[in-house]
Amino acid sequence: MDPVQAPVRLDLTTDVVTLTEQLVNIESVSRDEQEIADAVEAALAAYPHLTLTRRGHTIVARTDLGRDERVVIAGHLDTVPVNDNLPARREGGVLHGLGTCDMKGGDAVILRLAATVPEPNRDVTFILYEAEEIEAVHNGLRLLAESDPDLMAADFAILMEPSDALVEAGCQGTLRVDVRTTGERAHSARSWRGVNAIHRAGEVLRRLEGYDARRPVIDGLEYHEGLNAVAVRGGVAGNVVPDECVVEVNFRFAPDRSEAEAEAFVREFFDGFDVALTDSAPGALPGLDRPAARAFAEAVGGPVKPKFGWTDVARFSALGVPAVNFGPGDPMLAHKQEEHVAMEQIERCEQTLRRWLTT
Amino acid sequence: MDPVQAPVRLDLTTDVVTLTEQLVNIESVSRDEQEIADAVEAALAAYPHLTLTRRGHTIVARTDLGRDERVVIAGHLDTVPVNDNLPARREGGVLHGLGTCDMKGGDAVILRLAATVPEPNRDVTFILYEAEEIEAVHNGLRLLAESDPDLMAADFAILMEPSDALVEAGCQGTLRVDVRTTGERAHSARSWRGVNAIHRAGEVLRRLEGYDARRPVIDGLEYHEGLNAVAVRGGVAGNVVPDECVVEVNFRFAPDRSEAEAEAFVREFFDGFDVALTDSAPGALPGLDRPAARAFAEAVGGPVKPKFGWTDVARFSALGVPAVNFGPGDPMLAHKQEEHVAMEQIERCEQTLRRWLTT
Repeated sequence: MDPVQAPVRLDLTTDVVTLTEQLVNIESVSRDEQEIADAVEAALAAYPHLTLTRRGHTIVARTDLGRDERVVIAGHLDTVPVNDNLPARREGGVLHGLGTCDMKGGDAVILRLAATVPEPNRDVTFILYEAEEIEAVHNGLRLLAESDPDLMAADFAILMEPSDALVEAGCQGTLRVDVRTTGERAHSARSWRGVNAIHRAGEVLRRLEGYDARRPVIDGLEYHEGLNAVAVRGGVAGNVVPDECVVEVNFRFAPDRSEAEAEAFVREFFDGFDVALTDSAPGALPGLDRPAARAFAEAVGGPVKPKFGWTDVARFSALGVPAVNFGPGDPMLAHKQEEHVAMEQIERCEQTLRRWLTT
Repeated sequence: MDPVQAPVRLDLTTDVVTLTEQLVNIESVSRDEQEIADAVEAALAAYPHLTLTRRGHTIVARTDLGRDERVVIAGHLDTVPVNDNLPARREGGVLHGLGTCDMKGGDAVILRLAATVPEPNRDVTFILYEAEEIEAVHNGLRLLAESDPDLMAADFAILMEPSDALVEAGCQGTLRVDVRTTGERAHSARSWRGVNAIHRAGEVLRRLEGYDARRPVIDGLEYHEGLNAVAVRGGVAGNVVPDECVVEVNFRFAPDRSEAEAEAFVREFFDGFDVALTDSAPGALPGLDRPAARAFAEAVGGPVKPKFGWTDVARFSALGVPAVNFGPGDPMLAHKQEEHVAMEQIERCEQTLRRWLTT
């Protein structure tokens, strides 16, 4: 047995890179977030200007200054599984290790702001939540929206997912369908007695190859849809004409389509085939027509980009809260063994948000 | 532990249906043929007109009367796995159970002839062999052809695989290839950065769907080729554009093509794609132009049919020995849980061969 260890203490008065390092070194793979949530809760409890609420391993810290506007700033505490990439390691201006990019740099920014901006110019709800990297049923933000929707109420939300310290607005939706062809089994030595279901799937793939992606411009941002076979399976045995083939298709759709509209598009695209929906999540409109979002984008400066991947901003969008992604780290490095983050990006995100909350 | 049991004794003087039943009730799934081979060897050893040779669990029994002609009559002793279909069960004129059709009815005919035709009009080599239902590396007939090719030498061979008590001549060859498409991985939310290998396989399937089967007539028999995808696999994860897709294709080719010619046809058919041969076995020409084969077909009477499935007749054909399939049982019932055989077919096969060997 391990010796009993003192609880890890986070120092919110230290610099944001050191704090990131401390967070990275508390292993917190999804479903194992007790220790990091305890540490976060204990650290925030030292600041009387914050009202804390805990639900499972999700911590909510709010200011209540009666400001005209309220903003949510949120990040998840969990990571994908360890892959020989702990503890954190500094090299030049870069911090390496699991969670450095996705997304403990963002979490450190949140904790620093919560601790050191006691009188922000807009009320803030800081949310540090569990279980983002696994099935949605465990997602801390989803659970919070169900149990305490008032804690998620805001005029605007910032999700600190890695976005290279730029604003990535909204997100595309995603759905999956199984496109199934059927036939009749036969021994392959007498194949004319059967009907080959895999051959029939050729038309499914032909349509996919001919797919022309829609690229709608929404609030000045060009989204880019995608329709892809992500898996294909079929076959009974090496001497049997197969009677079933399934092509699993993932549709990434721009946020000007609802889930129902996206599903209808896919069903029409595969007209004549058996199409079964297996998974669906709505996109989020960029919301740059909302004053709070536009003001934030202007405060950050630099280009605003569309978010192609699905993120939890959609959960705010579904509650009517415009939301953007803004956090340190290259989103392409998320879930990679070699994930890392430029320290300068973490620092810049903290400075940008501090300025926005104080001037 | 089971009590030590006396070895099973086969009674070769009983009727052929009862003998079939005795053989069926000695469980002999491939690689577990010791008991049945021991019983066969012990039973044949009682007949001094036979010269016995044993190789593994393959038993060879020969007459050596100095006749002008020698014929091989062969059958395998193993079965596919038990599937709640033992012991044998009689119902009306039908015998049910594992191996009744494939092919202990034929084995019983062989044993009856070996025991009761001491002076056949042509010398006979009876072969009862192991491991036909599994990978060819274990096949008793293949091993015998390597270790003792002289024991397989003959003017003609009869393989007693189920053929509804009709002569099925020759057999088609079979080969398998993997047709592989490649692409580039990307996150499916930014799919335009990758190349979808599954989409590229659409053209492979389209060609297969347009395949027009050749049906050559050889020695008066119409064969029927077949080119089929028997499996397809591809996919990395539900959010990844896949970089590889493999279509496993089985080509059943008429015996007027060599293996090399068949492979060349498939490679040309999939021109432009990566094609890897994974498995190949030659066909067997019907050999009805050979006097011994023609005489046998005439003795049996009834229509002669082409054999579409691959059988061990090809092993004789490769040694220059014309060979046909002739045995009791519907070949479509082989490997089915409900396999069975009409008793009348077993009896008729015995009578036909007895007449052919004695008059």
